[in-house]
Amino acid sequence: MKNEARAIILEKFNEPLAERTFPLPTLREGEVLVKIEAAGVCGSDVHMWEGRDPRIRLPMIPGHEGVGEVVELNGKKKDVYGHPLKSKDKVLWNRSVICGHCYFCKVKMEPSLCLHRWVYGIHTSSGEPPYLTGNYSEYLLLDRRTDLFKIETDVDLSVLVPASCSGATAAHAFDLSGMESGDSVLVQGVGPLGIFAVAFAKSSGASQIIAIGGTEERLIMCTSFGATLTLNRHRLSQKERKEVVMELTHGRGVDVAFEMAGEPDALRECLSLVRPGGSCVSAGFGEPHGKIEIDCFHDLGRKNLRLQGVWVSDVKHTHMALHLILSRLEEFKKLITHRFPLSQANEAIRVMKDKEAVKAVLLPHG
Amino acid sequence: MKNEARAIILEKFNEPLAERTFPLPTLREGEVLVKIEAAGVCGSDVHMWEGRDPRIRLPMIPGHEGVGEVVELNGKKKDVYGHPLKSKDKVLWNRSVICGHCYFCKVKMEPSLCLHRWVYGIHTSSGEPPYLTGNYSEYLLLDRRTDLFKIETDVDLSVLVPASCSGATAAHAFDLSGMESGDSVLVQGVGPLGIFAVAFAKSSGASQIIAIGGTEERLIMCTSFGATLTLNRHRLSQKERKEVVMELTHGRGVDVAFEMAGEPDALRECLSLVRPGGSCVSAGFGEPHGKIEIDCFHDLGRKNLRLQGVWVSDVKHTHMALHLILSRLEEFKKLITHRFPLSQANEAIRVMKDKEAVKAVLLPHG
Amino acid sequence: MKNEARAIILEKFNEPLAERTFPLPTLREGEVLVKIEAAGVCGSDVHMWEGRDPRIRLPMIPGHEGVGEVVELNGKKKDVYGHPLKSKDKVLWNRSVICGHCYFCKVKMEPSLCLHRWVYGIHTSSGEPPYLTGNYSEYLLLDRRTDLFKIETDVDLSVLVPASCSGATAAHAFDLSGMESGDSVLVQGVGPLGIFAVAFAKSSGASQIIAIGGTEERLIMCTSFGATLTLNRHRLSQKERKEVVMELTHGRGVDVAFEMAGEPDALRECLSLVRPGGSCVSAGFGEPHGKIEIDCFHDLGRKNLRLQGVWVSDVKHTHMALHLILSRLEEFKKLITHRFPLSQANEAIRVMKDKEAVKAVLLPHG
Amino acid sequence: MKNEARAIILEKFNEPLAERTFPLPTLREGEVLVKIEAAGVCGSDVHMWEGRDPRIRLPMIPGHEGVGEVVELNGKKKDVYGHPLKSKDKVLWNRSVICGHCYFCKVKMEPSLCLHRWVYGIHTSSGEPPYLTGNYSEYLLLDRRTDLFKIETDVDLSVLVPASCSGATAAHAFDLSGMESGDSVLVQGVGPLGIFAVAFAKSSGASQIIAIGGTEERLIMCTSFGATLTLNRHRLSQKERKEVVMELTHGRGVDVAFEMAGEPDALRECLSLVRPGGSCVSAGFGEPHGKIEIDCFHDLGRKNLRLQGVWVSDVKHTHMALHLILSRLEEFKKLITHRFPLSQANEAIRVMKDKEAVKAVLLPHG
Repeated sequence: MKNEARAIILEKFNEPLAERTFPLPTLREGEVLVKIEAAGVCGSDVHMWEGRDPRIRLPMIPGHEGVGEVVELNGKKKDVYGHPLKSKDKVLWNRSVICGHCYFCKVKMEPSLCLHRWVYGIHTSSGEPPYLTGNYSEYLLLDRRTDLFKIETDVDLSVLVPASCSGATAAHAFDLSGMESGDSVLVQGVGPLGIFAVAFAKSSGASQIIAIGGTEERLIMCTSFGATLTLNRHRLSQKERKEVVMELTHGRGVDVAFEMAGEPDALRECLSLVRPGGSCVSAGFGEPHGKIEIDCFHDLGRKNLRLQGVWVSDVKHTHMALHLILSRLEEFKKLITHRFPLSQANEAIRVMKDKEAVKAVLLPHG
Repeated sequence: MKNEARAIILEKFNEPLAERTFPLPTLREGEVLVKIEAAGVCGSDVHMWEGRDPRIRLPMIPGHEGVGEVVELNGKKKDVYGHPLKSKDKVLWNRSVICGHCYFCKVKMEPSLCLHRWVYGIHTSSGEPPYLTGNYSEYLLLDRRTDLFKIETDVDLSVLVPASCSGATAAHAFDLSGMESGDSVLVQGVGPLGIFAVAFAKSSGASQIIAIGGTEERLIMCTSFGATLTLNRHRLSQKERKEVVMELTHGRGVDVAFEMAGEPDALRECLSLVRPGGSCVSAGFGEPHGKIEIDCFHDLGRKNLRLQGVWVSDVKHTHMALHLILSRLEEFKKLITHRFPLSQANEAIRVMKDKEAVKAVLLPHG
Repeated sequence: MKNEARAIILEKFNEPLAERTFPLPTLREGEVLVKIEAAGVCGSDVHMWEGRDPRIRLPMIPGHEGVGEVVELNGKKKDVYGHPLKSKDKVLWNRSVICGHCYFCKVKMEPSLCLHRWVYGIHTSSGEPPYLTGNYSEYLLLDRRTDLFKIETDVDLSVLVPASCSGATAAHAFDLSGMESGDSVLVQGVGPLGIFAVAFAKSSGASQIIAIGGTEERLIMCTSFGATLTLNRHRLSQKERKEVVMELTHGRGVDVAFEMAGEPDALRECLSLVRPGGSCVSAGFGEPHGKIEIDCFHDLGRKNLRLQGVWVSDVKHTHMALHLILSRLEEFKKLITHRFPLSQANEAIRVMKDKEAVKAVLLPHG
Repeated sequence: MKNEARAIILEKFNEPLAERTFPLPTLREGEVLVKIEAAGVCGSDVHMWEGRDPRIRLPMIPGHEGVGEVVELNGKKKDVYGHPLKSKDKVLWNRSVICGHCYFCKVKMEPSLCLHRWVYGIHTSSGEPPYLTGNYSEYLLLDRRTDLFKIETDVDLSVLVPASCSGATAAHAFDLSGMESGDSVLVQGVGPLGIFAVAFAKSSGASQIIAIGGTEERLIMCTSFGATLTLNRHRLSQKERKEVVMELTHGRGVDVAFEMAGEPDALRECLSLVRPGGSCVSAGFGEPHGKIEIDCFHDLGRKNLRLQGVWVSDVKHTHMALHLILSRLEEFKKLITHRFPLSQANEAIRVMKDKEAVKAVLLPHG
């Protein structure tokens, strides 16, 4: 093994990412050094690069999604299933670390709301040791509190990458949705988050899965993941979409609607298409982006509506997303539309920014 | 028994209610004739009288809350607990009748959303037989599908009246709230609905119960029902109220907030005072009355908020409200602040309209 | 249409079923006459024929599972989704009728426990009008309280038959199981109930589905429905099965175990293979059949076990089972291994009794 | 402050406990030294003393329940509510420490099943530093992962002691019970666990609370905590008790039964007294103690029974129990029937063993 690692750093917003070399760290008790096999390029990475994310401290190594191989560990360590971990094990890890002791962690068991939660490649800086704290890198140092998932089967690891962020967030959305087997489901937004929602709806027994989006290729991908109907918002007006949905649901609206687009209009449309007594789950807003108006009687009270916001995810949800992918590998392979070496990180950001890619990954050793 | 019954009818909106005499009906299979011991005067009765409720067909006998005595029944009948019913039994009944066969009744088991639900004294007309379809009357004819609750203990029946509407609706709100033992609770609005919310919070193990209202007498009543803190919105600004609530909840906000006021501002305040991951339950909007603006990120997504609307109630909730009252009779006696004979129905409407009364009842035989 | 219907009747236990002709009834308000396209032969039909079911009054027309076509209806009627029903509509119906007013129906919303629940072809007699009360018949008269499901797609109706009993009961089991996406699942018993459990586990996002049974053909069918591992109890000892399950679950046991066999040994094995904090759901016991011993500490307390019994099902579950089949028609076609005309009802009973068939149906007009 | 602490140690089973002096430890990062104001003497302490608990390593300082005052802390620390902790703060602490990373902690969020859970005064030894690891002591050293609850109100701290074990376990039982407002509840066993169950039932809105026990004084205490009926098993036969319960529940049985006695007969009786569809929660078995026989059809399947075992508790439940006590202090004062100085630890064990005390506490500085 080498003594140093190449990594991509963000030094200045809206300027090209640069490649730097960092020394490999000496591990403290409980820490794990992993070799990154694939790092996901998330839509929020684009926002960070643009300087829209207030959590960022420059300079930093981006990348909160990753999968790789254990290189070294200090002390004995098991994954969340109880596997003892050792060198060469293939692993996915939870992208966030929580305190485990606040009101949210311990009394309410809602760890994704932990007051001290931090995420690799978001809250971390590369300005001081141990430097290697983001996934756009050959190696990443995992804090001793990081939760790992050993990958036992022989799979293309890059396909698993989306489990750690969009997949886990979609899992959280389903966990909070109250969706039941046989329900009709609407998904607004057909990026990775929306596609995961379609996949979870299918793997949760939805009777109808209607996806609304604006990109034909992605709508087609939704169909391959289980959507029973796709509606292109550039071809059908909102009024036409409502007519279709109402006809399919006998005038009631869907049982559960998932807003996965991060657009106020998409959330408003979800509200208008969910049935009385139904749930509208909003997981698309990762940053401030507009408001909606709610009529207290018509939208909420008379409708007995449940409107549920979703904030990020925790280990439970990464577990769910990981197993969803493992059970439907062939379909999820298609989700990874672009693969780049580390040196093309700027191009990876661009294809995500321009929505050329559904999901791009970096292959630091590829 | 007489052959006729005196009843109060609403013939023209905003005009005094009038007393009329109607013939007692001949019972069909499964029907029950009850002698009304006490009929509740609900805030929504005032709205009906003012012509603000589109469900009303004139002429009609108002009154959807009632408690009384079985006079006659055609055939064998049991209450929801399995008691065979007979003449002279004291009974409360569920105010609404549902179809029992639609998607809401049978697949989703949310009967309060039944497509064919109707309520005595709201959807009923006195223009045709059997006439006696509202509770502002000496007698009421109960449809064969009506669910009854036999009252086994010797209590002042008028105290039970609020179980059938505001109590049941508050029970529904709690049923949907996900409130847990030990939670901090906020109640916005201190009419009967809000007072029931305070009482349910206490009887559900809330650690803190904060009531916000504008009437000092009602806030004092909230304290007697279990509120640990009351905030008069005429004495404290919204900013001051927020400071108090945040200090009491270590800066997080309450676990569950109940909007029981039917005012958009009250709902907005609830949203601002509930913690991340908490629930905001809105049960106050019985008719169209304004809108609120929600910031998709700050109010909903980042906050992982659950915003739950509540529409009316069903038998399960009447059961819960009835037992709440029975377990705390002394406190609930104080809720009934005004009692009138049938002949003073107009005055009863007035004291509710002017908020002189917390709860007024009519005693048709009193 | 003819004036009479051929039907199969059970007159004497353990004697051949006989064919009789009954007059078609005149419909009362709300009743529906259906032409039976396919009637399911259930394992419990065999028990009835053997005289082991105390609910039976002879003579009777067996058959509680059925699907068919509306022939006539008296009055307007909608299915549970809100479709207006008319002659020639293809329909499935819920096999049971409930009172809609007892403590179970109204307060606890557990209609499958209704005190007055009755089932076509089980609690009904053919000894008096309207005679046509079982599904082993050309026609069946549906009580006005029966809940129907209009079949909108053009499918082989016989494939839908199992939704009405084993599918619905399996749905009830899942509804009570608390199973979550990503869970490992064990299914004990590979008759129709067990196969449905495998199918529901797959369509609920199980990460592992282990089926234990004694018939190789059925275990293979389980694989086609989604089982990730099948264990033949004739080839592996109980100790060996435990070793396999524990290895697959890192020594913990499965998250949820479903007992679908109706054998005390199967239930005991489920208890031994479920993890601490897991759920063991028992839906296999449709009639008295033995006891098990539970160690209060080791099996229950220390294990924090949830042991959940399941009794029959209701409309919600038939809805779930129907949509499960509709979403996986090709697989479910294989479940119907035998088809007979009405005249071979005795042979249909025999193939079920001898476990030659997985599922046999009668085609009264086939 | 002194340099040493007196503590009670168990050196040999069934021999008198002895008093020893230990040096006060030097605190490592995150550790907290507390001065014990009151330590609870639990029924399981008696079992440990008798050598019936396999988890014990001698010598050890018993005592897993305690409340006290912060003496010293190394580093900054907050309680679970977010209060910064400082010297002189009154605190309760969670009796157990969990790993926070296994399948139970992270995927299933059932921390009381953590594979590495350990408890002060149970799994700890006094044979090596830091020695002070049990509550029968003047001082206790809290591991950095221990969760604390700052006590803000000025109360007799000894009244809070039972929150940490029997109260928390009862809270866990309620959390798993599915009990709803208005339910009828049965409690079997009237030791601290049973009395807490009565108190939780009352504070959860139970309509009826029936307690069964063998000690008249404790049954009377149950009444003061909210029992609506108490049945002395020495005065009424099991058959008579069943008649009473069935009459009160219209022949159905109670909605939820809590086994808090740790006796197989008590669990069997619970099963016979719970209604179809009801829950039977068993929290009494802290150690191996017998078996029961279950009829697969009559007890489980036909009854649609939920039988739920309960193992210990976690922070969430201690929080619930603490707030239950704080909201009903006057009643809970009566639960502490005996108070002893540290020097009388043997007598404290004796009064618990002989059931002279409901709850005894040691006051190390009293």
